[in-house]
Amino acid sequence: MTAGMTPDEFRKHGKELIDWVADYYERVESLPVTPDVDPGAIRAMLPEFAPELPEPFTEVIADLDRVVMPGITHWQSPNWFAYFPGDSSFPAILGELVSAGLAQQGMLWSTSPATTEIESHMMDWLVDLLGLPQGWKTSGPGGGVIQMSASDSTHTALVVARQRAQGSASLDDIVAYGSAQAHSSIEKGARVAGYRHYRPIEVDEQFALRTDRLEAAIAQDRAVGRHPAFVCSAVGTTGTTAVDPVRAIGTIARRENLWHHVDAAYAGSAMICPEFRHHQDGLELADSYVFNPHKWMFVNFDASAFYVADRRPLIETLSILPPYLQDAASQSGSVIDYRDWHVPMGRRFRALKLWFTLRSFGAEGIRSKIREHVTAAQTLAARLEADDRFELVAPTPFGLVSFRHVAGDSATDRLANAINRSGRAYLTASKLPDGSSFIRVSVGQTNTTTHHVELLGDLIDEMSDPA
Amino acid sequence: MTAGMTPDEFRKHGKELIDWVADYYERVESLPVTPDVDPGAIRAMLPEFAPELPEPFTEVIADLDRVVMPGITHWQSPNWFAYFPGDSSFPAILGELVSAGLAQQGMLWSTSPATTEIESHMMDWLVDLLGLPQGWKTSGPGGGVIQMSASDSTHTALVVARQRAQGSASLDDIVAYGSAQAHSSIEKGARVAGYRHYRPIEVDEQFALRTDRLEAAIAQDRAVGRHPAFVCSAVGTTGTTAVDPVRAIGTIARRENLWHHVDAAYAGSAMICPEFRHHQDGLELADSYVFNPHKWMFVNFDASAFYVADRRPLIETLSILPPYLQDAASQSGSVIDYRDWHVPMGRRFRALKLWFTLRSFGAEGIRSKIREHVTAAQTLAARLEADDRFELVAPTPFGLVSFRHVAGDSATDRLANAINRSGRAYLTASKLPDGSSFIRVSVGQTNTTTHHVELLGDLIDEMSDPA
Repeated sequence: MTAGMTPDEFRKHGKELIDWVADYYERVESLPVTPDVDPGAIRAMLPEFAPELPEPFTEVIADLDRVVMPGITHWQSPNWFAYFPGDSSFPAILGELVSAGLAQQGMLWSTSPATTEIESHMMDWLVDLLGLPQGWKTSGPGGGVIQMSASDSTHTALVVARQRAQGSASLDDIVAYGSAQAHSSIEKGARVAGYRHYRPIEVDEQFALRTDRLEAAIAQDRAVGRHPAFVCSAVGTTGTTAVDPVRAIGTIARRENLWHHVDAAYAGSAMICPEFRHHQDGLELADSYVFNPHKWMFVNFDASAFYVADRRPLIETLSILPPYLQDAASQSGSVIDYRDWHVPMGRRFRALKLWFTLRSFGAEGIRSKIREHVTAAQTLAARLEADDRFELVAPTPFGLVSFRHVAGDSATDRLANAINRSGRAYLTASKLPDGSSFIRVSVGQTNTTTHHVELLGDLIDEMSDPA
Repeated sequence: MTAGMTPDEFRKHGKELIDWVADYYERVESLPVTPDVDPGAIRAMLPEFAPELPEPFTEVIADLDRVVMPGITHWQSPNWFAYFPGDSSFPAILGELVSAGLAQQGMLWSTSPATTEIESHMMDWLVDLLGLPQGWKTSGPGGGVIQMSASDSTHTALVVARQRAQGSASLDDIVAYGSAQAHSSIEKGARVAGYRHYRPIEVDEQFALRTDRLEAAIAQDRAVGRHPAFVCSAVGTTGTTAVDPVRAIGTIARRENLWHHVDAAYAGSAMICPEFRHHQDGLELADSYVFNPHKWMFVNFDASAFYVADRRPLIETLSILPPYLQDAASQSGSVIDYRDWHVPMGRRFRALKLWFTLRSFGAEGIRSKIREHVTAAQTLAARLEADDRFELVAPTPFGLVSFRHVAGDSATDRLANAINRSGRAYLTASKLPDGSSFIRVSVGQTNTTTHHVELLGDLIDEMSDPA
């Protein structure tokens, strides 16, 4: 067996690359967080055509440093404060290595019983770890499945909701609702799923969805013959980690017969600490729920955990059974075939990295990381609040600090640009609903400690205009 | 930095796992291809709750053999002849390792220039390697992107086609067409995308779509006020690798203003050998195209290559730009932001495994593998045809042999079950459109050689009922 590489070459180069990855994490803190590279510069280093003959793998490894590294944005730097985190950890990386090695296709239980059962088990573990409703376990009417991204999970919820509504309504009339501060994946998912009507609902002064406006929008749509079908509550919006009133929205959804989806893509990981769970009060009124362990639970992308309270409408919507996919185990009804739980058919063994990570950190290890991140973020928020050059624009319930310079948009934008250009940290310049500028500091990279957030505080101090 | 595991522990355990993976490939041929495991048996070995405290990683590694291996279906056995291949190779596994190590999020060019540019470059390399239309390169009006699966790629095409049709039609009236032998992802994707009408079109005696029936179905739909919007040509159907008349279907699609999608998920890899390209004649009449390097190009799942002839309607359909995702590079128009090319926002650095694989095999190395697979399959087909117990039910243009026992369905089913239960090989029992049984032998696992196919021929010979 020498296709592409012999086993001995794999042992040799694989170990070199393990060291290469370890070296990377040992030096990433010292690298500028963002690369200094022009569009097209990476491609310009590559030959125009694929090679006809094999190249030595030593050249491939050499190109990691020559071609790839100049174009890497260091999401795994402890000085990463942009967007939301997109974390990795050593145990998760090894989970991905084993997953690639076994190269399973878990579309049916029978095509990889281990892929299916360890995934079900990890989804059940997370129900207890996060205090989610017990009925979402696979032993109940619901269940969890790993999807690629929260966009995929939310799109799936939108499709099931649309399918349910289609029984009694024209597709042209079906409506979805979400906070005006909800992630773009809600609106995009609605468009992809064929909704012609998406209503961003006004938010309150803390950027949480206003239920009075939601009720008014639903009534207005009903009055003109539309069919309200779906509403999303956000636990931690992308803009400022605002928390929508899940219970109140869920109550409206029940009364109005809407599918209620809860998007906790980022903040869901924090629920491993009981002190944050009041933010998810009302989850038993959700029809579906998504959170991304690949954001803030130290598990590599892709691992989006999608739960439904009742798995039947999901499977009914997504199951199509051609003859080449029928087998005895599936027909017995005693197994889960996850291909009926999402759009793609093929699926990697993604539960391995969750399993490796949860066991290597232990629940306490994850709690301790998340608590350090939140405390460091809140400490930074207090420091900024005490500085008369800055003002906070939103609370810091989790790891995100949202602030601006009191001198206005240009001072705020200048500060963000100066920090990002320095390479010493990377954060996100964004806009509030009124169009004014603010800065998002997202504390959550696996190896970010209190120390790194203090250094960022110093950097903000150093680079800001006077008030 | 000791979250979950220190760098030194990572070096140690990473190298152990590299050896574990190499050992796996050295012994996989000797293992029964499918596991002997009852539903629930894997989960029963796992503790009910996640651990509170960290566990030593040595225990995690030990559980790979204790818990995971008993539930593994060996897609990477050279005796794997089921479904279509879902291949891996050593260079691709190392690509996945580095991808996990760098843990990039390539949603925007700026969030990982290397992820974006190497992906564009690999998609362009494949255009030349497979003889695809030159306009599909990123320098032309089209372009390629890596999606998770062919289901995702096809769903994306269906969404863009639906969006185009929605300009002038009610969603309730939009219709999609595909061969009755097309992959289930066409019908599923249509349902997910909100099409209320999917028409499976009758096939000819070689299981290829009948264009006269397609034209009749379109005319019938128009007559009752429906809006034909999408048609799929299959180059290598899942049932029997039948090849639809791409040029004829494309001509109809142009005339009737349908979006024309070509699904070459499996057979596309073969086009690296010029002698197979006559099967894709007419591709310049396609609006979109998918093939999966993760099936038969020795690249690990997920790597589905999706091309469009014109990238504008794709991006217009899928682009939503919230303030936290706006940056200077995107606004300059000089870069690709792949988040606008598919449903998910986040994306892994999947191009690495393609790059590693293409360089390590060289184009000639891949051609030589694929030619050996096709020749071995055709040799097996000839052997079965010469044996009066068997008859072929379809041609073998690529690596799939489709045959049955002349004594009928029960002898055919019995043969498939006997072989699969033996553990010496794994193939797929399926059904023809008339409901009769046949056996699919798919030759394409990375390490399958002529020798393994000969052994399978012996096994069929040994386990068959008399005529």
